[in-house]
Formats: sequence, structure tokens, C-alpha cells
Amino acid sequence: MADKIKKRQIPSKNKNLSEWYLAVVREAELADYAPVRGTMVFRPWGYALWESLQQNLDRMIKQMGVKNAYFPLFIPMNLLEKEKGHVEGFSPELAVVTYGGGEKLTEPLVIRPTSETIMYTMFAKWIKSWRDLPFKINQWSNVVRWEKRTFPFLRTAEFLWQEGHTAHVSHEEAQQQVLKALEMYKQEFFEQLAIWGVVGWKSETEKFAGGLKTTTFEALMPDGKALQAATSHDLGQNFAKAFEVKFQDKDGKIKYVWQTSWGLSTRALGGLIMVHGDDQGLFLPPKIAPLQIVIVPIYQDKTKSEVLKTAKALEKELEVEFRVELDDRETYSPGWKFNYWEVRGVPIRIELGPRDIENQEVVVVRRDTFEKETIKQAELKQHLKEILKIQQKEALEKSKKLTLEKTYTVDQYSQFKEIMATNKGFIRAFWCGNPECEAKIKAETKATTRCLPLEAKEEKGKCIYCGKPAKYRWYFAQAY
Amino acid sequence: MADKIKKRQIPSKNKNLSEWYLAVVREAELADYAPVRGTMVFRPWGYALWESLQQNLDRMIKQMGVKNAYFPLFIPMNLLEKEKGHVEGFSPELAVVTYGGGEKLTEPLVIRPTSETIMYTMFAKWIKSWRDLPFKINQWSNVVRWEKRTFPFLRTAEFLWQEGHTAHVSHEEAQQQVLKALEMYKQEFFEQLAIWGVVGWKSETEKFAGGLKTTTFEALMPDGKALQAATSHDLGQNFAKAFEVKFQDKDGKIKYVWQTSWGLSTRALGGLIMVHGDDQGLFLPPKIAPLQIVIVPIYQDKTKSEVLKTAKALEKELEVEFRVELDDRETYSPGWKFNYWEVRGVPIRIELGPRDIENQEVVVVRRDTFEKETIKQAELKQHLKEILKIQQKEALEKSKKLTLEKTYTVDQYSQFKEIMATNKGFIRAFWCGNPECEAKIKAETKATTRCLPLEAKEEKGKCIYCGKPAKYRWYFAQAY
Repeated sequence: MADKIKKRQIPSKNKNLSEWYLAVVREAELADYAPVRGTMVFRPWGYALWESLQQNLDRMIKQMGVKNAYFPLFIPMNLLEKEKGHVEGFSPELAVVTYGGGEKLTEPLVIRPTSETIMYTMFAKWIKSWRDLPFKINQWSNVVRWEKRTFPFLRTAEFLWQEGHTAHVSHEEAQQQVLKALEMYKQEFFEQLAIWGVVGWKSETEKFAGGLKTTTFEALMPDGKALQAATSHDLGQNFAKAFEVKFQDKDGKIKYVWQTSWGLSTRALGGLIMVHGDDQGLFLPPKIAPLQIVIVPIYQDKTKSEVLKTAKALEKELEVEFRVELDDRETYSPGWKFNYWEVRGVPIRIELGPRDIENQEVVVVRRDTFEKETIKQAELKQHLKEILKIQQKEALEKSKKLTLEKTYTVDQYSQFKEIMATNKGFIRAFWCGNPECEAKIKAETKATTRCLPLEAKEEKGKCIYCGKPAKYRWYFAQAY
Repeated sequence: MADKIKKRQIPSKNKNLSEWYLAVVREAELADYAPVRGTMVFRPWGYALWESLQQNLDRMIKQMGVKNAYFPLFIPMNLLEKEKGHVEGFSPELAVVTYGGGEKLTEPLVIRPTSETIMYTMFAKWIKSWRDLPFKINQWSNVVRWEKRTFPFLRTAEFLWQEGHTAHVSHEEAQQQVLKALEMYKQEFFEQLAIWGVVGWKSETEKFAGGLKTTTFEALMPDGKALQAATSHDLGQNFAKAFEVKFQDKDGKIKYVWQTSWGLSTRALGGLIMVHGDDQGLFLPPKIAPLQIVIVPIYQDKTKSEVLKTAKALEKELEVEFRVELDDRETYSPGWKFNYWEVRGVPIRIELGPRDIENQEVVVVRRDTFEKETIKQAELKQHLKEILKIQQKEALEKSKKLTLEKTYTVDQYSQFKEIMATNKGFIRAFWCGNPECEAKIKAETKATTRCLPLEAKEEKGKCIYCGKPAKYRWYFAQAY
């Protein structure tokens, strides 16, 4: 029988996170491997997650007065080379086009790994006066970074993202924009994806290639590794000088603009899967769920028409307020459908059979707790609203709890090493700021500096590695 | 004075359409040339048009039960070569990646010119049973076709589009899907873009490389040239056989699927500009306009606060029903703003000054006709709704009129040549179906077969070129 309930192929999350992750990606049909190594296909359910995220983030981006635009995929090699730090950082990861229209190109073209260089070439042409500033652009696009180790969503040769780019009259205004974008990302993670995390400054070693300062949103995964989930960069005037992005100020003088760039990618969806999935598959917090409620009708031949009629009416009634779908496929059994939607993480399932109709009730099942309740139809909407609200709240709480449980305040390097060798997690430790200590810690423990929290307070401490005076506790962790 | 009204740099549309077009693209800040030949930047106003189109078309695509997904940019050369007709058609236009991550690739990667080959490689993996059919996928993405002659929007090396791909149990069902997609495009052009056109079948010469039959939406531009604005292909089983896309049918037998693909690109925006622009710049039919109404406040120092307050309240009131924006930029004069929004084609301008407030009126100016009316605030919403409706309707009528005026039913080849040498336009003429006649007509007049209309009726005629019996009048035109 082809519609028999498929046995779940999902191993335990606690036992082996990587294996579990790959199984969820496969069984929930989120993504699949494509023929070119390191690339993947976003299958409809995986892409629907991205559309859901896009819709929310795009709204917030536009609220900041940023306008969407689209710049070319191809960047001439000479443009990429204009900012020294930038080209050094990105050249090991480039994909290069050398033939076009059957002919060898006179200059190789790089597939954008990020768009600073192509965008700012145009900014230089468009920005003339202080009246044109602030100038704020965002792009939703694909980018390519040739990675050796790849992993679905978290690290792929081609990924989807948004990149915001702004130009300002002053460094101060640019700095404010950097923090505004970071705050927007925090809101996206906390409120839609229900992923808790820490916002802070990157070290010199870990900052964006070509930038002045980088801020980041860092989230902890269940295996104690950190995910750099979104970044926002203060570019200073580095690119402005390399690309001659200048304006005439009110005082009549020609000045270089101050710039920012900030991005969030499909990598965020990897975090979502990691943080909220369980041994039954995916769980989607209601605000990101493309579908919040699925209705599964249960009937036999003689009750079929009545049940389907009632189920359709219920779908119609609910779709005004919820993202809901009636699964009326005739080729599959109710049990098969339960499984199908559980693996995909739809927050609520409604079961509707002839007896429920008689009693004016439905059965409501929560995907996160598997709690099952019988609810009077008159109270259903209110009840669903409450469950969705609770699910969203509890998902964030769970993520916060997981993070705090694995966040260690450490003053001894031996303890630091012990944690990194076992549980892993965020380690809060004093660091003197010397890149040599940072490099040695990384070599000895795999932990890198993740960030100096925005809210960090100056203290009197000693560097965890060299023992010299240190003012701040940084967050360390092994990175994805 | 920096805010002085900029002299329009737009030449007459009637005199030289190409020059006029390029000027509108530049002055309305729709697009700009990028550093790589043949590529362009979609500036915010141009990209907003695409977003507006996307929103409407995406809704219609989803209504057909099609789900969005995303496939990789890179296609291994060997995949592209699997379908012979396909690779022959596309190889002159390919961009090829030969280096990745600093190393020469063992197999060159093609940047997708269209995604049949990469998608159907995956379809073969996913589709197993008749239960999986119909299988319907759509992708919004960038594609690259290395073009020699390029023109903003209409022909660029990289462009944005959607491509729908479906697989079916039977040829009949696939054929229905081809026509459904075509009908959807017709609706998009008629109802949102207000572009009139003809739907029909392509000839064998003009069909999609690798397909069985191609249908098309053809629109006529003001210079009498035709724009192939969207196409929908019956792929038969050509790709299914090349990529082994098979399923087990209800009868237990393994069969090849029947496939369709269909696409609409940013080229449609080129048609929009051509058809609806005028000597003042762009005009946007209200349904595609990212902004339908702009409010320009007119004040002096002592009336400023009252006018701005009233204007803001008006914006707030109107934004419930319309896409409206208050242009309260202090660095520009009202006259400068009038010009700014006229060039960009916003359908309605509202002017609001102190005397208007006193009289509880506003001044409403139509962008298409430049008619100016004073309207009581109490009647404003109703009035705006009516104007927008009329503008949308009249825009389509104008496009239809332009097309019909340049549509000629011709039975003499001498007349055919005469028209093509002067006015140009759609020529309805009998053609015997012989590709040799088609090729000779093209060589002698530049006219190609655009389509055989879906609604064409069988008649008894003679081929316009060879005089042999011919059953149908085809549409001929010079193509963009």
C-alpha cells in the first residue's frame, strides 16, 4: 500500500546533531543536494520559510527608509581589487567566469560574493550632494562563495540573502545606521524566528574584509557551537575612498561619504531548524510558519461528504485570521497526513471527524508538545490564537534557556579548555585584545572570539590566555 | 540654486523612439548601465515596478497550485548537453565559470540561461508515482544570456524572471497547463500592465529550443515592432526522456511525464515604458504603479506647520485605500517635486496649500491627461478611486488602439514589403507553414512570424510568399 505511514528516518537529536539535522532537512523536504558540489536546491517547503522571513524583514527594511534595487551578478575583477582588505578576504572563495557567448573574455568576471564593489561604483555616479544623503539601498539576491566544507543552509557555495548598503554625511550617522540594522536583525531573530542570541562587536580578526568595525548577532546551537547569524558593518570611509564616493556638503566642500553594509542570509534557516527541531522532525514557531494550522478530515465513505463540507467551511472561516490549509488529498490516509505535517513542523493540527461535527467540536493537537484537546467550535478561534501565542513565546524561552545553560563565565584557561573539549557553549572570558592570544586560543581549543556584547561593562580583569590586564569579557565559542 | 527645476532631457517620443526610451529610463531613474557590457542596474524606481508586477503574478501563480522553489545558478555543462535541441539553441549565449576557489574546475559550469536541465535532474529524483503528479514548481531568479546587442530592460545579459515548470501524467493535462499559464500572462498584461496583445502559437523556427510547441503573448510597440513578452511551452516528453523523469502510473506501468515550462521577465517592464510613456516621461497605469498618488504640500514659512499637518493627516487617511506618499522633503520646491513625480509617472498628484485648507479642498492633477480639478475633501476618496479606474481602463484602450491601427491584413507581398519598409506593425498574412518562405520573408523584410493566434480560424488562402495553399493568417512583425 503506497499510502502506508512512512517510518520516520530521523535519528535522535541528542545523539548526533549533524545526522539528525541532515535527516530533518531530507524528511521535511526542505532542501536537496544539487549536482554541483556545495550547491543545494531549496525545495518548496524550505523556500516557503525564506519567503516568510523575507516578507517580515523586507517590511522592517522599508520602515528604515531603505529602498530595494538590483545590481548585476558579474563584477569585473579590477573593481573587486580596488579595496585591498576586501579582495584579500574574498579571493580564496571566488567563482570566476572566463567565457561569454563562446569567446574568452578579455577580463575575467567574478560572481558577486557580496556587492560592495559593484554597488559603490554606481553610488559614485549617483551621489553628488548632501541632498542625496542618506542614500539607502537594499538588495535581495543570490551570492556565491566557493566553500570547501558545505552543509545545507548553514554553508553553501550559493546562498540567498539581503544586503543593505547606506551612505551618510557623517560617521556618527553611519554608526547609528549600523546599530539600527543590528537591532532589526535582533528583532527578526527574537520575534519571528524565536532564536535567542547575543549582539556585539567583532574583533579585528573576525570583522568584515575591508570594513572598519563589524557587529553581529550570535546564536548558540544545541551542540554548543555558535552561529554567526547576521552582521552589520561600519565601513568607515574605506570603500568611499577606493571608489571615490564623494558629495558636496552644505559648506561647499567635497567630502567622502561614510558607509555601512549589513546582511542576513538563508543560513538563518539552518539556525531555525537546529534550534526548534526535535526527534519528530521540524517545529516551526507560528510567526515564521508558512502554514500555521492544518486541518485533517477523518471520514469513511458514508460520512465523507458531510465531513469535507464542514472542513471546507472551517478552512474558509479560519483563513481570515490564520495561515491555514485543509489537507483533503484523497490518496493519503489521515495517519499518513499526521506524519507528513508533523515532520514539516506545522504548529497546530486540527482533526475533524463525524462525531466532532455532531458535538460541534474539533480536536486540536500542538506540534511542539503533542498536547491534544477537544475544543468547542464556538471557542476555537480564540483558543487557536492563544496556542499560537504561547507556542511563539515558549519557543523563544526554550532557545534562551538552551543558550544560558551553555553560557559559562570562566576565569581559568584550564576550565576554558575543559568546556571546549566537552559540552562546548558560549564562554564569557576576559581577553586583552591581542590577536596573538586570540589565535592561540583558536588553535588550542577551536574557540574564536564571537563578539564583545554591546552591553558589556568595563571591568578589571586579566586576559584568560596571557594574564595581562583586560577590560572586557568577550564571548568565545566554536563557530559553525 | 540646487533645487531649481531641472530641465527635462527627454526628446520627442514620435521622432526617435530609441532615444526617447533611453532618456526616460535615465530621467525616471529606472535603470543605469553597469560596468560589464550588457548588464544593467535596476534602480529603486525600476525595481519597485518589478516588485509590483511580482506581487500580482506570484499570487496568480500560487492560485494555479504552483509552489515556489529555488534551484542553483550553476549547471554542469554535461547536464545542459542532455537535450540536443536545447543545448544547440542556448550554447551561443552561455556564460561559463571555469575557476572556483582559486582552482581550475574539472568541469566548466554554465550560468543558467533557463533552468529546465537543472530542475529536471531533480524532478527525476523526486517524482516516483502518479500520486506525485501534477508536480508544479515556480522560480523567481536571475538568468544570464550573453547578448551582443543589448538595450535596458528589453535585452540584457542578465535579467530577472519567473520560470514555471510542471510535470503531468498526460499530454492533454500538460497542454491545458500551457494554456492556463498563457491565459495568466494575458491577464497580467491586459489587467495590470494595461498592455494589449495577441496570444498564439509560435512557428517551428521560433519555438523554444528543446520544446514541442511554444505559445506566446505578443505586444506591439509604438514603432511598430513586436515584443515577445511572455512564453509558455509544451515540452512534450523531450526533456522527460533526456532526464529520465518517470513515474509509476495507476496501472503499475512506468511512464515518462509530460512537461511544460513558462516564463515572464523584466523585459515586460520595457514594454510598459514604451507603451505608456510620453514626452513628459513615464506614465504608470495605477495597478502597476508602486505609488498611485503623491501629495505635494505648498506653503510659506507662516503656513508651513498647518499645511504639513493637514497633508500628513490626508496621507494617513488615503493610505488605507491607496498607495500614497507625502513628499515633504524640505530641500526641494513644489515645482521641482511636480517635475520629479511627473517624469516617474505617478498617476495622480494632489496639491495642497493654505487656501485649499481654508476651502476644504485639494487640487488633483492627472499624470496622463494633465487635467487639473479642485475637489472637495469630502468627495476626494471617491473621486480618486474613479480617476484611477478610468486611467487604468484608458491606458489599455490606448494600447489596443495603437495596436489595431498598426495591424494590417495583407494579401500581396508587395504591400507586405511596403508596410515593413515604412510604418511597420503587425501584418496578418497567409503562410503555408514552409520554413523556407518564413526565412526568405525575414531576410527580405526583417519580419518574422510572431504567432498564429489561438483564435485563428481555418480559411482558404494562398501563402503571401510562395502562393501555395495556406490555411491560416499568421501575425508577422519585426521583433525586438
